[in-house]
Formats: sequence, structure tokens, C-alpha cells
Amino acid sequence: MLERVFVIGVGLTKIGRFYEKHAKELFSEALWKAIDDAGGVKPQAIVVGNMTSSVLMGQDSFGALLADHAGFRGLPAFKVEAACGSGGAALYAAYALVKSGLVDVVAATGVEKLTEATTGYVTRALAQAADADYEVLYGATFTGLNAMIARLYKTLFGYTDEELSYWPLKMHEYASYNPYAQIRGKTTIEEIMSSPLIADPIRLYHSAPIGDGAAVLLLVRGEDRAREIAKKTGRDVVVELASVSLATDSVDLTTRNDLLTMDSTVKASREALKKAGLEIKDVDYIELHDAFHVTGYLSIEDLGLAPKGLAPKLYREGRFHKGDKPEINFSGGLKARGHPVGATGIYQAAEAVMQLRGDFPGFKASNPETALTHNIGGVSTTAAVAVFRRVK
Amino acid sequence: MLERVFVIGVGLTKIGRFYEKHAKELFSEALWKAIDDAGGVKPQAIVVGNMTSSVLMGQDSFGALLADHAGFRGLPAFKVEAACGSGGAALYAAYALVKSGLVDVVAATGVEKLTEATTGYVTRALAQAADADYEVLYGATFTGLNAMIARLYKTLFGYTDEELSYWPLKMHEYASYNPYAQIRGKTTIEEIMSSPLIADPIRLYHSAPIGDGAAVLLLVRGEDRAREIAKKTGRDVVVELASVSLATDSVDLTTRNDLLTMDSTVKASREALKKAGLEIKDVDYIELHDAFHVTGYLSIEDLGLAPKGLAPKLYREGRFHKGDKPEINFSGGLKARGHPVGATGIYQAAEAVMQLRGDFPGFKASNPETALTHNIGGVSTTAAVAVFRRVK
Repeated sequence: MLERVFVIGVGLTKIGRFYEKHAKELFSEALWKAIDDAGGVKPQAIVVGNMTSSVLMGQDSFGALLADHAGFRGLPAFKVEAACGSGGAALYAAYALVKSGLVDVVAATGVEKLTEATTGYVTRALAQAADADYEVLYGATFTGLNAMIARLYKTLFGYTDEELSYWPLKMHEYASYNPYAQIRGKTTIEEIMSSPLIADPIRLYHSAPIGDGAAVLLLVRGEDRAREIAKKTGRDVVVELASVSLATDSVDLTTRNDLLTMDSTVKASREALKKAGLEIKDVDYIELHDAFHVTGYLSIEDLGLAPKGLAPKLYREGRFHKGDKPEINFSGGLKARGHPVGATGIYQAAEAVMQLRGDFPGFKASNPETALTHNIGGVSTTAAVAVFRRVK
Repeated sequence: MLERVFVIGVGLTKIGRFYEKHAKELFSEALWKAIDDAGGVKPQAIVVGNMTSSVLMGQDSFGALLADHAGFRGLPAFKVEAACGSGGAALYAAYALVKSGLVDVVAATGVEKLTEATTGYVTRALAQAADADYEVLYGATFTGLNAMIARLYKTLFGYTDEELSYWPLKMHEYASYNPYAQIRGKTTIEEIMSSPLIADPIRLYHSAPIGDGAAVLLLVRGEDRAREIAKKTGRDVVVELASVSLATDSVDLTTRNDLLTMDSTVKASREALKKAGLEIKDVDYIELHDAFHVTGYLSIEDLGLAPKGLAPKLYREGRFHKGDKPEINFSGGLKARGHPVGATGIYQAAEAVMQLRGDFPGFKASNPETALTHNIGGVSTTAAVAVFRRVK
């Protein structure tokens, strides 16, 4: 019988445009915050979710570089890449490392540095989540591909752009409470609709911003160890990482079964819930992947929370807000908390853990006992879904 | 009690300059060869060791791309990056995935496509294994950094370049028997010494060539399952992957304890051997990382097989050749088998497995029962060491 896995500490940097900081510095800040949060327990291995270090920083050997700078020269460390889902994939690999017994404590981490790129261009780098030969070569940007999906969605299901703008409106509101968020100001439908068009119909305020950040989750094997650490840090609950599932789809969109269904999200979420012994209706709190407004809606639908085409309507009518089940994205989501690509999956996990512990410093969920995080890479080319559970 | 992990199939492409082939094609060839070798057993997850897809192919989401092309759309798949040690790091992650019970069969894979790069330059891309800010920015290439180490080594221990050339001489000889090797022709000390100087004192024939290739190892959990598959494929032995260890060091060389000791190699090999219940003197066969001649010698020393400074002398005197214990690099090593960067660690593992099974199609080891593989990234910034054991 394999022992269960628990989260003993989380550490986040604020997300922003930190021209003056190297990825190493952001990483060290988040890692040591997590160690402090865990009462001083240190990792025995480090898994780094990151997408763009090779292209924007000209740096490989990236896991070792970060481990060394943070004071952990020598530890097993490597980078995991799955585009914007790199953080979720790193969580999956880290979960395996600790559950297998290879190490007793592992740091599941994500870091991304998009500003002051030294060896590449951000829009080009982010497009590498798409197919180099069949999409990018012909000029597609990542926003462009998502715009095609947004156009199909609004046309097929009969929404106006204003109606779809309710998601970013709420995300900005939630993020205004989140001290780690990149965008702290509330907005209005009018402001959203008058923001610049990036790729029709997607406007600037329908999109996640470009930002830097680092996030760390410390995982331990065994409930006794987790309880001992919780006691030391004055907590009376422990948070179990009950399951992590990863699934993939094609990179290019042309061969998808259905452009408006993210098969990998469906697959990974079903599997993760099953492994945790839950159904989606049992989940109290969710952090999901909303790189664009339409991504947020598709995610709600593909997680099984709304019939296809109804997510925007239900969301505007009040579903998934405070007091509902599940409550969704009180961090402000990728839209407003920010989306430091390879770190996003770990931010989501840390936020879910804090909501379960009751110490999230932003907009608080209603005392959730179970939480799910959903992180994707590409247009759900990769989906990582994790289920967390508060254990009294 | 965690179940043990076994290798049930291996698949390799020939290494070469395949201008006409995409990385996807090389990957699919190796994966399906491994599936055939395992009597048709298919993976439930795919871990891809790769260094340069982001820079040379402009492609992220790389794990999903390869899984899809090989016919495994949907499976958990992600890329692991640890520079030239990406394959070894992927083996480490894959071992954890299967040992943890997340999946029952995993493909530990590596693929690299260095020829016909579409979005970058090979020498620049390979330099990304070094520190972008403290080394590459000042003009260092990866060969340049290793040349400094080679110069220090020969000066300190009093070797001539001719004396150090015995390693490549033997590697070329061994590779001439290996159908997967990039370089199949034997050479002479005179030819080595008259080859172009790349970075003094390293000459072309002291260096691993640039090549493309893909390698796959299929791992399963549980001896019963492994025996059942072995029976089906007509084999009377199974090969256990007894341990995999990963360790790191600084990326930049300036802060190393000793330029001529690869601390991460020392650490990873000691740990891997300890976990397997062995000492280095018990190991019958080794595939080690010889990106340059000096790397081969340092590896021998840091694995604990020779006192510092004596590896070239002992090697010339006949140590580590056919009939000795251990026998080393009968594949031809990185030097002549080739070094498709992120795939190299998996090539080594596959070669070790075939030597243990007795079906390596090249220069055969003397019926080994235990084998060790040693794969590094950067100047041993990352070291991955795996121990394999034949079980009757």
C-alpha cells in the first residue's frame, strides 16, 4: 500500500513585470517562502515547470541553475516542459517522485520570466505551444488560434462579445483582493469592450497578461509526517494531494475531434476525480485555466460543470460565485492573478491549498473541504488536473 | 513494500544526420521498435528527454506532439530538460512514474534533432547547457569550456595530446561493430591528431559528433509481469532497473570545488549503487558519458574506477577493455556511437540492457550480470546514474 501525499508548504511571489529580477531570484524567493511555510522542512528534489527559459533566456540546465542559486546545489533537479501546462506537468512528476519513495520531500515548482527577454521575443516564444510546422510557420500566434475558437464559440452558441466579457469582469474583481495578483484594479464591461482588439474577437482585457512569477509547493509522503509538520506550524488541518492526472491531445487544432471540446481536460479531470474517489459535483473549490475568456468557459464545460454552450450564461446568472458549489477562481484566474506560464499550475495548486487551510490572503472561498486545479498547455494540448482534500 | 521496476523493451534508431526526417518520425520508429521488443506491450505514459526542440525546432508542447504522432494521443506525456543529461533525467522521472503506481507501463524516451535546425544554430543551442549570464554571454562555447578542463587535466597530470587520444581510438573501434552508431569507421592516433583543432587542445576526433536519434526504454512494475512478458518474447532472463539517481552541481564552472572532479557524478553514482546494494567493484559493464575525451577520463575517475589523474594511463594499459571488470562503452560511447543529446542517456540504458540480455548487436560484453549507465548534462551540472541487474 503506497502512502498518501500531503502538501506541507506553499510559497508564491507576486506576479508582475520584474525587469530587475532574474528567474533565479524569483525562484529562490518562492522556495524559501514555502520552506518557511513548512516550518523549515527542506526539499530533497526539485521539479521545475517552465516553458520559455531556452528561448527567452538562452538557458538550459535550468533545474540545476535554480536549485544552486536557491542554496540547494547537488539536489536532483530538472525542468519539465508542457507549454503553459508545464507547472501542472511538474506537479505530476513531483507527485510521482515523492509517492514512489525516491525522495521524502519534493518541491513542485514553476517559474517563468517573460519580461526583459535576452534571446527571443515573447509572442514568438508563446506561439511555440502551437504546432511549429502546421500552425506557427503560417503566421499563427497563440492568441490568433484562440480567437478562432472564440469566434466559433460565440457564433455557434449565439453570444455577443459583451456577454462573454462577464468572466474577465469577475476575475478582475477577485484579483483586487489577491496580494499576489498582477492586476489589482477592478474593471467594467465598458472598459473591457473598449480595450484594444488583439485577434478578433479577443480583446486585451479578454486575455491573460504577460508576467513573471514563481510558485512552490512542498510535498511529503505519509500522513503522520504531514501531521507532525502541521502541528509544528500551528495548523490543525493537513491538505492531501489526493491525485494528479495528466492527459494530452494533438498540438495542431486541425485534427481535433471538436474544436470546442478539450478532450484532454475531460480525460484528465475524470481520471483525477476517480482516483480521489470523487465526482465533480463533490468539489467545493476550483482554480481553472482561463488564458482567454473562452478558455474559462470551455474549461467549466469540459470539467463537467455546464452543458456545452451554457457556461457564459450560467456564469452571468451567478453560478460558480461566492456561496455556490463549486466556487471558481477566487484568485482572479490567469486573467487577472496573472499567467507566468510554467508557474501557473503551481500558483493554482498553492491557492487551492490556502483556500482549504483557510489562510488564502485574498477573496476567500466558503470553507471548502475539496478543491480541484486545472492547468492546460496549448489549447489543452496538455491538461493537468489535481485534486486536494482537507483532512481534519 | 514498493514493487521493483523492470525493462521489458528497448528501441533505437540509427544515429546520423537525417535531414529528411522530423524528430516525430525518429521518435515513432524507436517507440514502436520498443513495443515490438516488449511483445506488443504499450506505454501508459511517455516521458521525453530532449534539450533543443525549443531553440532549434521552435517547438514546445513537445511531449504531446511526439505522443500524438506515434499513435498515442491522449497519454500523459511531457518533456524533461537537463541539457545533455535530459535522457538520464527522463529515465529518473519515468522510473518514479511507474514505481509510484501512477502508471503500470511507462516509456522513458529521448529524442534529439540537431540537423536541419529551423529556428536556431547548433553550437549556440548546445552552449545553453552552460551559464547564459556568466559564460555564454562572454563567448564561451560548450567545447571551449571543456577545452579549458582538458588543458588543466593534461597539464596537471602530465599527458600529451597523443596519450589522451587512446580513448577516441578505442571508441571508434567499438562503434565499428555497432549498427546504431553514427561513426562506423575505425581510426588511428595519427588521424585523430591531424583532425582539426576545435578548441585547443580538443580536436574534432576528441569530440562527440552532431547527430539525430531517438531511443526508448519500456519499464514495467513488478517481477511477475516482467517474467510473463519475457516468456512471451522468448527470453529466459529479465532485466531489473535497480535504481536511478540524479544529482546536480553549479552550471557555471567558476564556483566549482574542483574543476577536475564532477561532484554530481560522484554523488549520483554512490547513491545509485547504494540503493542497488552494490559497490562500483561489483559492476560488470558500464556505459559512461564521454562527450569529449577528457570527459571520459573524468567519468572513469569520478565513478570510483581510477585514482584522479590515472584514467588515461590505465586505459592505455588495457583496463576497462574486453575481459576486464568493468568493461566500458562497447557501444562506442558518445564519441563514436554518437550523442543525440537528450536521447543519449536512453541509448546508454538500452545498450546496457541488451548487453545484460546478451543480444546487443555490436561489440559484446563478457556475459555481464550488472550494468551501470552514466549520463551528464553540461560539465556534469546534472548527472544521472542508473543500475541494471540481470535476474535469472
